[in-house]
Amino acid sequence: MLKEFGDGGATLEDVRFDERGLVPVVTQDARSGEVLMLAWANLEALSRTLESGLGTYFSRSRNALWVKGQTSGHTQKVRSVALDCDGDALLYRVEQQGAACHTGERSCFHNPLRAEEELPRLGLTLERVHDTILERL
Amino acid sequence: MLKEFGDGGATLEDVRFDERGLVPVVTQDARSGEVLMLAWANLEALSRTLESGLGTYFSRSRNALWVKGQTSGHTQKVRSVALDCDGDALLYRVEQQGAACHTGERSCFHNPLRAEEELPRLGLTLERVHDTILERL
Repeated sequence: MLKEFGDGGATLEDVRFDERGLVPVVTQDARSGEVLMLAWANLEALSRTLESGLGTYFSRSRNALWVKGQTSGHTQKVRSVALDCDGDALLYRVEQQGAACHTGERSCFHNPLRAEEELPRLGLTLERVHDTILERL
Repeated sequence: MLKEFGDGGATLEDVRFDERGLVPVVTQDARSGEVLMLAWANLEALSRTLESGLGTYFSRSRNALWVKGQTSGHTQKVRSVALDCDGDALLYRVEQQGAACHTGERSCFHNPLRAEEELPRLGLTLERVHDTILERL
């Protein structure tokens, strides 16, 4: 179970679910900072995420709770959950096993719509070198 | 104007707006990787973002187009826009002027709900050192 915050932290009661009982969740790789996916949670999905430490969502298409990676093995160990300033969006920071996207891509945001040249990201490069070294040990 | 992608890139026609004509947008700091905010765009907000290169959204509370930073000066120069695998979420990667959050915090996700110890993020630390040096030049 993830640790509760004391003073200064948000609580489950602060989460403002929409008229469908859902809140959007941004899921980010805790180490590289890469944005992996955007999904949705209801109160049960969020509660189970906090209890189990596994990224859990609500599938709008299947209308059912969804533990990410339960069938694919591509689970998410959740390191932290944060609520945004107006209480209607969540950020899960996770250790992602394998690919987050069902297409096999690491992130679901792999379709560029438009871009200028990319900014150099020394940090991301460094994290990836680090991860590659760990994988090859 | 942001450059269009040729083969392999997504187009405006690929974006699946919801029944309100909206799509959630995750906004990320292009250099540090920090997730800054979650907001919404309609077709006009997205089109203006692509044309102007300034982060533009649709405010659900004010029911109006919203150029981020138009009043506060905390604008966002958009470096890239990506669409997720099922076409119903966007990622803006931006250079954020000042704070993204109206509270003055850099990110809107500053309310921790639960957390284990944070993973060390060497990359993020390095980017922040780099930014601080630039600011002090």
